[in-house]
Amino acid sequence: MCKSHQINKSLIQNSINMDTLQKVKTSVFKFGNKTADGNSKMKNLLGGKGANLAEMSLIGIPVPPGFTITTEVCTEYNNFGKEKVINLILEEVEKAVKNIENTMGASFGDTQNPLLLSVRSGSRVSMPGMMDTVLNLGLNDEAVIGLANKTNNERFAWDSYRRFIQMYGGVVMGMKPESKDDIDPFEEIMETLKENKKIHLDTEFSVEDLKNLVRDFKVAVKKRTGQEFPTNPWDQLWGAIIAVFNSWNGNRAVYYRKMHGYPEEWGTAVSVQAMVYGNMGNNSGTGVCFTRDAATGENQFNGEYLINAQGEDVVSGARTPQQITKLGSLRWAKLAKIEETDRAKNYPSLEELMPEIYAELNEYQQKLENHYRDMQDMEFTIQEGKLWMLQTRNGKRTGAAMVKIAMDLLKEGLIDEKEALLRIQPNKLDELLHPVFDPKALKKATVIAQGLPASPGAASGQLVFFADEANKYKNAILARIETSPEDLEGMNIANGILTARGGMTSHAAVVARGMGKCCISGVGALKIDYKSRTMGVNGKLYHEGDWISLNGSLGNIYEGNLATVEPELCGEFAEIMELSDKFSTMKVRTNADTPKDAKIARNFGAQGIGLTRTEHMFFHEDRIKAMREMILAENVEGRKAALVKLLPMQRTDFEGIFEAMQGLPVTIRLLDPPLHEFVPHELAQQKELAEDMKVSLEFIINKVAELAEFNPMLGHRGCRLGNTYPEITEMQTRAIIEAALNLKSKGIVAIPEIMVPLIGTLSEFIAQEEIIRTTANKVFEERNDSVKYLVGTMIEIPRAALTADLIAKRAEFFSFGTNDLTQMTFGYSRDDANKFLPIYLEKRILTVDPFEVLDQEGVGQLVKMGTDKGRSTKPNLKVGICGEHGGEPSSIEFCHQTGLDYVSCSPFRVPIARVAAAQAAIK
Amino acid sequence: MCKSHQINKSLIQNSINMDTLQKVKTSVFKFGNKTADGNSKMKNLLGGKGANLAEMSLIGIPVPPGFTITTEVCTEYNNFGKEKVINLILEEVEKAVKNIENTMGASFGDTQNPLLLSVRSGSRVSMPGMMDTVLNLGLNDEAVIGLANKTNNERFAWDSYRRFIQMYGGVVMGMKPESKDDIDPFEEIMETLKENKKIHLDTEFSVEDLKNLVRDFKVAVKKRTGQEFPTNPWDQLWGAIIAVFNSWNGNRAVYYRKMHGYPEEWGTAVSVQAMVYGNMGNNSGTGVCFTRDAATGENQFNGEYLINAQGEDVVSGARTPQQITKLGSLRWAKLAKIEETDRAKNYPSLEELMPEIYAELNEYQQKLENHYRDMQDMEFTIQEGKLWMLQTRNGKRTGAAMVKIAMDLLKEGLIDEKEALLRIQPNKLDELLHPVFDPKALKKATVIAQGLPASPGAASGQLVFFADEANKYKNAILARIETSPEDLEGMNIANGILTARGGMTSHAAVVARGMGKCCISGVGALKIDYKSRTMGVNGKLYHEGDWISLNGSLGNIYEGNLATVEPELCGEFAEIMELSDKFSTMKVRTNADTPKDAKIARNFGAQGIGLTRTEHMFFHEDRIKAMREMILAENVEGRKAALVKLLPMQRTDFEGIFEAMQGLPVTIRLLDPPLHEFVPHELAQQKELAEDMKVSLEFIINKVAELAEFNPMLGHRGCRLGNTYPEITEMQTRAIIEAALNLKSKGIVAIPEIMVPLIGTLSEFIAQEEIIRTTANKVFEERNDSVKYLVGTMIEIPRAALTADLIAKRAEFFSFGTNDLTQMTFGYSRDDANKFLPIYLEKRILTVDPFEVLDQEGVGQLVKMGTDKGRSTKPNLKVGICGEHGGEPSSIEFCHQTGLDYVSCSPFRVPIARVAAAQAAIK
Repeated sequence: MCKSHQINKSLIQNSINMDTLQKVKTSVFKFGNKTADGNSKMKNLLGGKGANLAEMSLIGIPVPPGFTITTEVCTEYNNFGKEKVINLILEEVEKAVKNIENTMGASFGDTQNPLLLSVRSGSRVSMPGMMDTVLNLGLNDEAVIGLANKTNNERFAWDSYRRFIQMYGGVVMGMKPESKDDIDPFEEIMETLKENKKIHLDTEFSVEDLKNLVRDFKVAVKKRTGQEFPTNPWDQLWGAIIAVFNSWNGNRAVYYRKMHGYPEEWGTAVSVQAMVYGNMGNNSGTGVCFTRDAATGENQFNGEYLINAQGEDVVSGARTPQQITKLGSLRWAKLAKIEETDRAKNYPSLEELMPEIYAELNEYQQKLENHYRDMQDMEFTIQEGKLWMLQTRNGKRTGAAMVKIAMDLLKEGLIDEKEALLRIQPNKLDELLHPVFDPKALKKATVIAQGLPASPGAASGQLVFFADEANKYKNAILARIETSPEDLEGMNIANGILTARGGMTSHAAVVARGMGKCCISGVGALKIDYKSRTMGVNGKLYHEGDWISLNGSLGNIYEGNLATVEPELCGEFAEIMELSDKFSTMKVRTNADTPKDAKIARNFGAQGIGLTRTEHMFFHEDRIKAMREMILAENVEGRKAALVKLLPMQRTDFEGIFEAMQGLPVTIRLLDPPLHEFVPHELAQQKELAEDMKVSLEFIINKVAELAEFNPMLGHRGCRLGNTYPEITEMQTRAIIEAALNLKSKGIVAIPEIMVPLIGTLSEFIAQEEIIRTTANKVFEERNDSVKYLVGTMIEIPRAALTADLIAKRAEFFSFGTNDLTQMTFGYSRDDANKFLPIYLEKRILTVDPFEVLDQEGVGQLVKMGTDKGRSTKPNLKVGICGEHGGEPSSIEFCHQTGLDYVSCSPFRVPIARVAAAQAAIK
Repeated sequence: MCKSHQINKSLIQNSINMDTLQKVKTSVFKFGNKTADGNSKMKNLLGGKGANLAEMSLIGIPVPPGFTITTEVCTEYNNFGKEKVINLILEEVEKAVKNIENTMGASFGDTQNPLLLSVRSGSRVSMPGMMDTVLNLGLNDEAVIGLANKTNNERFAWDSYRRFIQMYGGVVMGMKPESKDDIDPFEEIMETLKENKKIHLDTEFSVEDLKNLVRDFKVAVKKRTGQEFPTNPWDQLWGAIIAVFNSWNGNRAVYYRKMHGYPEEWGTAVSVQAMVYGNMGNNSGTGVCFTRDAATGENQFNGEYLINAQGEDVVSGARTPQQITKLGSLRWAKLAKIEETDRAKNYPSLEELMPEIYAELNEYQQKLENHYRDMQDMEFTIQEGKLWMLQTRNGKRTGAAMVKIAMDLLKEGLIDEKEALLRIQPNKLDELLHPVFDPKALKKATVIAQGLPASPGAASGQLVFFADEANKYKNAILARIETSPEDLEGMNIANGILTARGGMTSHAAVVARGMGKCCISGVGALKIDYKSRTMGVNGKLYHEGDWISLNGSLGNIYEGNLATVEPELCGEFAEIMELSDKFSTMKVRTNADTPKDAKIARNFGAQGIGLTRTEHMFFHEDRIKAMREMILAENVEGRKAALVKLLPMQRTDFEGIFEAMQGLPVTIRLLDPPLHEFVPHELAQQKELAEDMKVSLEFIINKVAELAEFNPMLGHRGCRLGNTYPEITEMQTRAIIEAALNLKSKGIVAIPEIMVPLIGTLSEFIAQEEIIRTTANKVFEERNDSVKYLVGTMIEIPRAALTADLIAKRAEFFSFGTNDLTQMTFGYSRDDANKFLPIYLEKRILTVDPFEVLDQEGVGQLVKMGTDKGRSTKPNLKVGICGEHGGEPSSIEFCHQTGLDYVSCSPFRVPIARVAAAQAAIK
């Protein structure tokens, strides 16, 4: 049995093995009956799932009983094989199953009152390629009849059996499609039957159909695998356990482990748990609930349930779920315009219908929130009058709820200030920073219908009725009868989501809240007709493309495109911001090209401008002409003549920005993009330009062609422009310095920091710096006055980071342009990466898009090197970041660790960056 | 006199000052009269020029006497100003001038027998922006008459005076053009005079004209500067000395110093030297000579001279120079078909004409060669029967001469093996690696004329008569009456150079040898007519565009385009190669895509292939169709079907290459370029393809457009192709492994090293490696046989170098692709950099093109990091370089220092790389 290499392995693994043998009594950890062998800290041994089930049980929550086989057993299995391992844990598993039987009052393998089980894999981290769940394990031709009798629901029993064979056959017996293009062999059988019976949905199968399917499935298994489908529940159980262990060394899991450097030794645990059913009659039910309001954060227990239903019935939106609490039920009825008599009779709350169950549930929700010190999202099932808690987890919530809950928990003394800050997902603050409807516009607006305020926010857009058409309009509102997982992408694209059916926990509502996207659900008045692409509301018809507006916080639907206003920092949001500044050590600046943006950012707490892009200013209609004249000029004189026209415009721009940021530093980057971006590429425009400039069309066409580049990203741009056309740098410097002097004479303090883009060598910097300082001195002389200013550089070319010690000899500050730095360090063109990045992300060759999240492993090395080398020359060198990563929380944390002085991001991300900076300091 | 800040400076600089005061006796270093105060080691104190003049004098060579004012005096000047410094060195300078007067028998400031001087700047390194030379210093209205009388040449005297005022006025008194677009003020006066007199050349000025020019020049100086032109020679001298010191802090010099980090403290020296003239009658003359033959390397003293002439007359080609030695003269006459009586009478050698002077010259040339242990290129002047050596330097030579001289000097015991190797400029070996005329073709060829074998080699091309038209043909031969410096660029473009006038030391000859370009000069039979663009030879007329062929080693001109054959490694060349291998520790591989290239490289000593680019193979006519089918396929099946067609073709390619390199490793890079490169971009071709593929033209056009990228360099290419279309990697791996197995069955050892391009992350590599290993194992199983192979990667993305420690976990070898690495590290697109690189080089923002010479400061850091990090994971990791830098000597030296195992370069650069590798090891 033991092959020689296994013996060798066993010698090597001796210590582990000895360990395992000593721990033989704890290879199986039981939970249930408000007690458990394990707890939440034992993730390495029990996997994430097993540890959490143990924890819940341990604190007295009634979870369906079960047990977890440890990850060490998996290692044992890999070393010694199936028989040895089964022998080792057989007794323990049998005891643990007995334990479940006792608690559930049912017997595993019993034909009258069968205990059914679920089997799941669970390693210490979630990993693709591991075994999926097997449900309803324990069913066979006899037990299915027992289940049918016991539940008095033959269809349910046979459908469960059919599903069990399908799941078990697939994941345990390898009944998978043979190639990527084949369909699932079980699905194929079902499709054939549907065709024969001319039906379309699984729900249309009769009991007889289901029985036939079970038979055909088993035949197919035998045919394909050469093995009978196991009828003995114990064979089924061991098969599933071994399948979990095998999945640890499946191709996909191994590939994933290699990619992430996870050792094989980790292994996977196996969790086995009793099945419970909410569809066993009117004393059964199932539901979802939250300890606080996931939309607003209000400290109010809430949730939805359905009597005699399975979990999927609640979230699918097919039936209208009822409220858990009476308060919630009353509020809901008011919104849904349902009379109290109707409500009390047809939609009673759980609190009213099953007061004892409700009391128990209420006790558990409080206990769980106190235990986990956060808002919980729980699933429960009532099986024949007994309440089972299936799962609890920290609840998804809107940005507003996140902020309110964190501050409330702080005020309630459940968490401290640092913890409150760490509870903020900085990115979710984004939701609070989006516009809301202008109250003036709202006054005049017509409410055409009202639904459930499923996810707050304001959104306007043009109606679409199919998720895959959400990109048809720049602003779309997706209206559906109900949504399903395949609608995800379209939901993400749309500005807002509207559903005729479904409650606060419907698919649409939950997903929208997760996305921070405005959503109104359960609008009974909506009559959506997919065929004609129309939506009827109270006698009025709306067509695809019509504008509507949604207020997801109130559930109001308006006609037309309502005006919006900018959000403000107030309430708990302002409190969190204040708390952030108390802890953060890194400053937050903004990237702003206009006085308007500068003001917004300043209101959001920006402590300066980290990047003003001067080129955007040249695209204005009144300037692009002069810019083009400059570009198309044949010599220095021609360029200078055109630049003279641009000078006063640029000066005015800078005056506005300096004024908005008075007293705070303003980093201005000199002209950066290739000149090709400024010239017209359409023939009509080229003709116009030729006439304007009084030159031939041919001249224009030739010049435009001459400016074209193979790889403009790596071409004639940045300081390469300033060094080949020094007069551009002269003009821009003059505009900056004159603007600062003009403000000084009005008593306004301007602090310009002139930033040279795309520096790769010290010489390049010196050449630009000479021009800047000479020009500034000339202006100072002319005005007989001066201002303080700095001359620094972007570090966005790998070579600049590598030679930062040299560049810091002259540069007075650095600002990492991590957009370009990422492009060049990876060799990815951001404009072209869409050809392979999605595939890389799908194949997990990349785990995140490096343009969104700073790549600390590679690009981060250059950031660190640039900072350290720069400061080795100039210890007090000011260093910041102005790439888009400056507003991304994990990147901000890295910037903090690297010792940057500031991050700079777009105005609307300033609050996010402030929280992230504080979190970095706390961590 | 001393301003306060000067006092402060003096305090700070106290130590230097004290030092200088102690050294007061040696502020001026005399030389001449076969003795000197300094020597060649004192470059820091005397500048390069001063130190060399001292050295020559010291070893007994008669150089025109003079003295050098030290660089320390320059520093003194900067600290204390003019008056103090003049006081400090006045006495010494006066003594030194007296010394010159004694040696020359003339007096500075004397009106009858005036001593004239030259003044030159000289810092320890050559630096642009420093003062040019001032010649003929000491002339004034009286001295010019003395000079005219003494030389009996009034025109010469006034022309010298005119030139002196022009030079002195320009460099000392600031009579420069006011802006870049203005012309020189003196030239303007001369142009006006020419217009008035309707003449075109300076030589057409009469004595009276020259006198008028002198007068007008002085008026112009007074008008512009407000100062009289100094008439006192001592004022002239101090003015020139101070101008040299000032030039040290001139804008251009300061800018250059900053760029290169040279400290201000270095300062510049001033060398003052007696003027000597070769045009003082028939007992005067001037010449140029070489200790060995600069074309062949033969150990034969040679050179040319002219009686009663100035240096520029010898090199300009205006007069036919005579040979120094009798042997040379006889050889020359034979080539030029001149009868011995004619020769002896009209073109006697110096050996015959002035035997004593010749004997002296011969002694000096031997002495100088022995002293400098290298072939010397010397200039001399005979002034009224006295020989003066003006300059000696290591002589420029052809590649063949370089090799022969180095080996001869080794055999003569003058230098050792290491020194002989270090004497090789590896790049010059290139000349020896170019084709020579096929002897068979030569037999049938018609010699249309013969000239001087000015620079060896074989060249065919179409006739052009103007340097700026050399790019008119792909292969051009530039034919000129004589060449001048403005022809340089055209000479560089042309395949060969042909001149009707000029000797072996003419401009054309010297420049061509420096370029390693074939040249025939002094072809008296040529009648070149620029107007009609024709060349008449012995009654036959050749027009622009006609093909001719030159053998620069023999001086033969042939009609038509002669066939060539590949060169061989033999003689001294082979000896040098053997010597190289004795010392080098790094291997040299080649970049070869075809069996033919592989064989050439192997003959040149390549020790393997470092890069086989597989994509070039796909451009063959028979393959591009299948390639396009693959690219335009709509799905995996379509791609696979097309790849099946490509497989046998690729396999055959690899078999050929493996066979050529049997027993040596062959690194094969998987498909690298973006697919867009393979599809047709012309409408006609697109139509053809549509028909071939039986799809609509629209489909083709759309697909081509879809493949277009904004920055293809950073786009969907390299391993990104292999990871998005794994079937490409599968096919290529299969072709490689099957080819190796096929050869194995024939008893030929193939050593494939499969190289994945454009890796940026470990995950990318793993994904490709899995495909490669799986495919290889499949082939091994099919064949029931196997071969050894490696899987490694290019390191060409900055991120790969940064994370090399991770990538080396899996990669079995690294090869630095420094072309792409340079592009991404600098952010330069090689295709677009022509827009700014030339300007950067001109402005000295870059000193070399980083695509030619590896940028050690920046890119080099990544190469070092990649190597060190890679070996930190895998100590025996094989590391090479396969970018074009692999054939560039300074880059090869860097690779050696970094510890690379090999460099890989194009076949014809293999010998160059072998020498460079040896030199690196010796250094």
